[in-house]
Amino acid sequence: MVGDVKRVYPAGQLILREVGLRDGLQLTKGFPSTEAKAEWIRREHAAGVRHFEVGSFLPASRFPQFADVRALTELVNGLGAHALGLALNERGARDALAAGVSELTMVLSATEAHNMANARRPREQSLAEIADIVRLRDEAGSATLVNVGIAMATGCSLSGAVDPAEVERLAELCLNAGVDLVGIADTVGYGGPRQIADLCRRMTALMSKRPYVVHLHDTRGMGLANALAAHDAGARVFDASLGGLGGCPFAPGATGNVVFEDLVYLFETAGIRTGIDLEEVIAIREILAREMPEEQLHGALAQAGPPKEMKWQAEAA
Amino acid sequence: MVGDVKRVYPAGQLILREVGLRDGLQLTKGFPSTEAKAEWIRREHAAGVRHFEVGSFLPASRFPQFADVRALTELVNGLGAHALGLALNERGARDALAAGVSELTMVLSATEAHNMANARRPREQSLAEIADIVRLRDEAGSATLVNVGIAMATGCSLSGAVDPAEVERLAELCLNAGVDLVGIADTVGYGGPRQIADLCRRMTALMSKRPYVVHLHDTRGMGLANALAAHDAGARVFDASLGGLGGCPFAPGATGNVVFEDLVYLFETAGIRTGIDLEEVIAIREILAREMPEEQLHGALAQAGPPKEMKWQAEAA
Repeated sequence: MVGDVKRVYPAGQLILREVGLRDGLQLTKGFPSTEAKAEWIRREHAAGVRHFEVGSFLPASRFPQFADVRALTELVNGLGAHALGLALNERGARDALAAGVSELTMVLSATEAHNMANARRPREQSLAEIADIVRLRDEAGSATLVNVGIAMATGCSLSGAVDPAEVERLAELCLNAGVDLVGIADTVGYGGPRQIADLCRRMTALMSKRPYVVHLHDTRGMGLANALAAHDAGARVFDASLGGLGGCPFAPGATGNVVFEDLVYLFETAGIRTGIDLEEVIAIREILAREMPEEQLHGALAQAGPPKEMKWQAEAA
Repeated sequence: MVGDVKRVYPAGQLILREVGLRDGLQLTKGFPSTEAKAEWIRREHAAGVRHFEVGSFLPASRFPQFADVRALTELVNGLGAHALGLALNERGARDALAAGVSELTMVLSATEAHNMANARRPREQSLAEIADIVRLRDEAGSATLVNVGIAMATGCSLSGAVDPAEVERLAELCLNAGVDLVGIADTVGYGGPRQIADLCRRMTALMSKRPYVVHLHDTRGMGLANALAAHDAGARVFDASLGGLGGCPFAPGATGNVVFEDLVYLFETAGIRTGIDLEEVIAIREILAREMPEEQLHGALAQAGPPKEMKWQAEAA
């Protein structure tokens, strides 16, 4: 699978993944029409985004916001970009593989308490299922990457502090189960930059030349500082959502995922090219404002705009 | 004056200064009553804050929000804390010295264009006035520190990019004029963390063991990432305002100064003690909400609260 990993995540290259279409729509009251989602994807693709988490493979009856996950996968595949899909169990994983996603994401919690609450099974059972799904993928001869996101990796709203060595141990078990990449998620925004840096240094060492994903929530405003700390520690793949979509059930009005637009600005001012047209991404927010008028959008760049009087973009290498 | 600098800024110690009472009220429609400001100061002092920029020494007829600057200076002095006051000319400086502020702050712009627009005189003339004011202070035998904040130090909304060597040159001219400390201000929030780190490394070298102030605006959401980058580069004194008070005329709705509460969380999670009670500082926002109901307050910690399930505070050294 290493060839496929390098195709989807070229070594050393900074990659910002749009997860607003999945994580961003998890808790919202409304959601964009399929047509509007397609416009969002097409315009972000034209602006330079290449990785889209298009939805969750869940029963459409209970999760209508993800009913169009197959159509969106097809759309992204048609653009030659990478469609990522979440699956919470083997049925979802089969569906995701059948839909032809570039990457199938599953979740394992860093703590037993959260895994029980979130997935209603012990972590050991989740790990066994992950191994089954990797086998399933291999037997199908599929090129789909399998990724496990480790939730609550910086602290858990159920059981408190999380030892980074425990996250590392779980990541290693995932690798042993055959997954192609892992992610670390600051699910409730408990992490600060030193903690994120420490965890990422461990992950950089563990993953060797393979990529790992950093999934940050901005619940406590640390998202950008954490992202830079993660990058300094070797992380190269970051999740973010347009307008910071994706609130937190524990903190009404709080930001959800780290804001895509602001992350672009952060990296560009730091001299790290994103390949993304910031002004166009800001303009795409109009789709969310139109389709989800009740939703509070976040982000500083959309308010203030990038500086007009000076060059702030990273230079070509 | 070195003895006095060390009294107000103990070497190496992180200091967060509340500038909401001055910079925060510069552009707001309303402002708190003197009694409410006094409550704000007293409660923040009880929560561990020791440095308060209490206002500008300007004609009360045109700047009613700062009419009580002398009374607030007295209040802060009575608490044994440090009152900082801004002066824009010699008359203001005389008033500030007479009022007994611990520190008199003046502004010099990094660019000629902004100095002309802001102070209506060339930078050379501003520097001559700064030297005059230092002499005035010395002749009065006053222990008041003189600080010059270099505005637009990371880029100017009038003339674009600013060479950090130019900021360094101006800081050196200020030191030659006899000032006790200097500040660097990201006045319009153009700076990113790499740029701030570069500038702070220069300042750390230039100032040797003397403190310098980092004054960040969060206009483009980079405030916290910039603050951490500055600290990593040796900066120890940071301005911030409760609720991020202090909007920007160029960006309606955008955050103003970096949010005090969020800065406390950032440093504490990074293992750097602030000596400040975060939950109490969050509670003090009620004064702003009550006195300035039309003003949008910013900040993630006030929305989400610090984690209840794990220790996030820095350990005692």
